[in-house]
Amino acid sequence: MIELISIGDELLKGKILNTNSQFLCLQLRQRGYQVIRETTVSDEAASLKKCLEEALARADLVICTGGLGPTLDDHTRKIAAELFQSDFHFDPKIAEDLRSRFGEHPTWLKDQATVPTKARAWSNTAGTAPGLLFSEKGKTLILLPGVPQEMETFFFTQVVPFLEKEYPLKHKRAHRLFHFCLLYESYVDPHLRALSEQYPAVEVGIYPHPAFISVLLSSVDPTQLLQFEQALIKRFESYLFPSEHGKVEEAVHSWFIENKKTLALAESCTGGMLAAQLTGVAGASSYFLGSFVVYSDEMKQEILGVSKKTLSTFGAVSEEVIQEMLNGVFKKSEADFAIAVSGIAGPTGGTKEKPIGTICAGIAQRGKEADIGTFHVRGNRALIISKTSNSLLGAFYRKIDRGAPAFPFIDE
Amino acid sequence: MIELISIGDELLKGKILNTNSQFLCLQLRQRGYQVIRETTVSDEAASLKKCLEEALARADLVICTGGLGPTLDDHTRKIAAELFQSDFHFDPKIAEDLRSRFGEHPTWLKDQATVPTKARAWSNTAGTAPGLLFSEKGKTLILLPGVPQEMETFFFTQVVPFLEKEYPLKHKRAHRLFHFCLLYESYVDPHLRALSEQYPAVEVGIYPHPAFISVLLSSVDPTQLLQFEQALIKRFESYLFPSEHGKVEEAVHSWFIENKKTLALAESCTGGMLAAQLTGVAGASSYFLGSFVVYSDEMKQEILGVSKKTLSTFGAVSEEVIQEMLNGVFKKSEADFAIAVSGIAGPTGGTKEKPIGTICAGIAQRGKEADIGTFHVRGNRALIISKTSNSLLGAFYRKIDRGAPAFPFIDE
Repeated sequence: MIELISIGDELLKGKILNTNSQFLCLQLRQRGYQVIRETTVSDEAASLKKCLEEALARADLVICTGGLGPTLDDHTRKIAAELFQSDFHFDPKIAEDLRSRFGEHPTWLKDQATVPTKARAWSNTAGTAPGLLFSEKGKTLILLPGVPQEMETFFFTQVVPFLEKEYPLKHKRAHRLFHFCLLYESYVDPHLRALSEQYPAVEVGIYPHPAFISVLLSSVDPTQLLQFEQALIKRFESYLFPSEHGKVEEAVHSWFIENKKTLALAESCTGGMLAAQLTGVAGASSYFLGSFVVYSDEMKQEILGVSKKTLSTFGAVSEEVIQEMLNGVFKKSEADFAIAVSGIAGPTGGTKEKPIGTICAGIAQRGKEADIGTFHVRGNRALIISKTSNSLLGAFYRKIDRGAPAFPFIDE
Repeated sequence: MIELISIGDELLKGKILNTNSQFLCLQLRQRGYQVIRETTVSDEAASLKKCLEEALARADLVICTGGLGPTLDDHTRKIAAELFQSDFHFDPKIAEDLRSRFGEHPTWLKDQATVPTKARAWSNTAGTAPGLLFSEKGKTLILLPGVPQEMETFFFTQVVPFLEKEYPLKHKRAHRLFHFCLLYESYVDPHLRALSEQYPAVEVGIYPHPAFISVLLSSVDPTQLLQFEQALIKRFESYLFPSEHGKVEEAVHSWFIENKKTLALAESCTGGMLAAQLTGVAGASSYFLGSFVVYSDEMKQEILGVSKKTLSTFGAVSEEVIQEMLNGVFKKSEADFAIAVSGIAGPTGGTKEKPIGTICAGIAQRGKEADIGTFHVRGNRALIISKTSNSLLGAFYRKIDRGAPAFPFIDE
C-alpha cells in the first residue's frame, strides 16, 4: 500500500503538469505495487505536515516528490525529520560530491549537505538535492526531488532496489509492449476483449496514437502472457512494427539502414512533416535523400514536372497527380524508393467529392509499378497531417518489409 | 479555499496523465481562486467516501472529476448523495436530453438520468453523465465527468458562473500573456525579478519553449500590471511576437497574409520541420510555396545548384553553402522571400570546429543582399531541430516586421 505526495505551489497553481505522479504510478504498478492515493499539496509547512502524517497513518510507504530545493519555501526535509524525531548532521560525502560537480557554493552547499541523522541520504547525480529515506516501525517515507529527470534516476537506482529488498513480491509481473500501424482502437478492442476473457490473468492496455496503436500486456502468469501474445500477434501480425520509442518512422529507418536503399519524398498536404519525422531519427542521412515539399501547384509543375493539364483535369488531390509526383521524384533524385502525398488537411478546401481528410498517396520502388490509393482520415488539421504521415509510414513499412499491399487501409 | 479530487483507478495505475487537475488549478487561479489540495483516489467506495469527507471538512468547495460513468465501478454519485443525505429521483429533462442525442438506451439512460434529489443537475452536452452540484451549510460539492472535454465545458458554462455568483471576489485578477522569440529564460529572469521587486502586486510566470519564451503577468492591481507590462515591452520589444497559440510560425504566417508576399525554403538539418511548422497553420497555402528538403549533398547540388566545390571547400554546414542554397531557392521558385538552413543536429557528425548544434542559416528577400549567420543551439537532436526552426522563424519575423538584423542571436 503506497501513497504519493506531490509538493509544490507551482502544481496547485497549474503552472506545471504533474507528470511525476503518472510516472511513479505506472512504474510501481508495472512492478506489482499498488498506489492507493496521490495528494498534491502546497509548500506551506502546516498543511504539508498534516498531509504527511495522514498519509503515513494510511500507508506503509509514502513517496514524496518536490520541495527539496535550497530555496526558502522548501520545508519538506525539516517536517519529515520532525515526524521521525530526527536531528540533522552535515554529511561530508554529500558535500564532497556536490563540490566536485558544482565547485564551492557555500550557501546552498552546506544547506543541501545537511541531512536528517535518521535518514539514508542518496547523492543526486543530476541535481543538488539528495534523496532521503526514513524507515521506522514499519513505516517508510521517501523524499525525492521534483525535477523529473532527478526523480526518475533516484527511482531506478535507489527506490526500486529498496522495494525489491524490503517489500518483495511473491509473483513478478512481466510486461510486453507491441505497436501496430494503421489500426485504430475501436477495431482492435473487440479482439482484445475476447482474448482477455480467455486469458483473465493478463492485464491489457491500449494506447492510441495518430493512425497507430500500442498494446501493453502484463501478467504474473507467464504462460497466459505468452498465449495472449501469440494470439494477438497471429491476428494482427502484418500490422506489427518494431520500434524502441513507439514511432513508425523508426521501423522504416531500420529497414533502410539494413537494406542499404535510399528514399526521397514528394509532399503536399503533409507540408514537410513526413520528412521531419524521418529525419528526427538520428542517422537518417544514411538513407534519406530529401523531400520535395511542393505546396503550391506551380511548385508541383516546376520542380516535379506534374503537368498543368493533369492538375486542372483531376485536381491536385488525385491519384493521377500522385503518379506524376512519383515520376518527378525518381527523375530529380537518385532515390530507390519514393513516397508522394497530396490531400485536404482543412479546415477549408473540402468539397462534396473530396471532403476534408481526403488523401491521395503513392508508394513506389524505382522501375516498378507504384501502389497508389486514396484514403480518408478524421480530425482537425494537425491530426489529419499526423495521421496521414503515420499511415503512409506504416503502409510503406508493411509493403517493403512484409510484402503487404499498401492500400486500402482499414477504416477508422 | 478549494480542493480538487480526481477519481479513477486508471490515474493511480498510471494509465492516463491527470491533465484535468492542471486545467482546473490554472483556470481557478487565473480567476483569483486558490486550490489548497488535490487528491487522486481510487473508485473503491470506502476510500472514496473517506476522501470526500476529509476534503469537505477542510475546504468550502470541493470539485471532483471522474467516476460518473454508467459503469459498475462508478460510485461517486451514490457516495455524494449519502454525504448530503439525499434521495435519488428520475429527472425527465436529463432523460429527454440524453434520448434526443443517443436514441433509446434503456440500461444506462435510466441510470444516468437518475440523480440525487438535493443536487442541481446539469445536462452534459458532449457526453452522457450529468454534472452535479450539492450545496448545504456553507459546503459545496461539484461532481464533473472525467473526460477532459466534458469537464471543461461544465467548468466554463456552469462552475464559473456559480463561483462568480456564490463566491464573488473583491478584486478581479487580470492577465496578460506575451511571447518573445530568440530569448531564453536565464536571460530574461533577472529583468523580471527586478520588475517584480518594483511591482510586487504582479505575479509573474515564465514558460520556456525551444528558443522562445512566454511570460504571463497577473495582478489584481491594474496600475501595477500596466506599468510592469510597459517596462517589460520597452525592454524586449524587438523580440515580442503576436500569436494566439504561442507559436512563432503564427506571427510569420500573419505577416505574409497581410503583406501578400510568398516564401520558399531550403532545409538541410531541420529536415522538413520548418515547412511542417509553417504549414501546420491553416491557410499557409496562400503564401507558402514549398520547401526543398535537400538532406544529401547530391540533392543540394542537383536540385538547388550548390556547387560541388563550395561543398568540398567549406563543408555542407557553411555560410557559403547557405548563400548558394538561397540562390537556388530564388532560381527554382517564384518566392519573394527565402530561408535556408544547414547544421549539425547530432548525435554524431560534430567536429572540433563545428560541434553538434552548429547551425548556418540565411534569410533573404529576392533581389536584396541576404542576412547570413552562424549560431549554436544546445540539446539533443529533437531539441536542436526545434530550437533551430523557432530561432529562424523568430529571426525572420524580427527582420521583416521590425527591421531588426537577423543575426547574431543572444547566446543561450
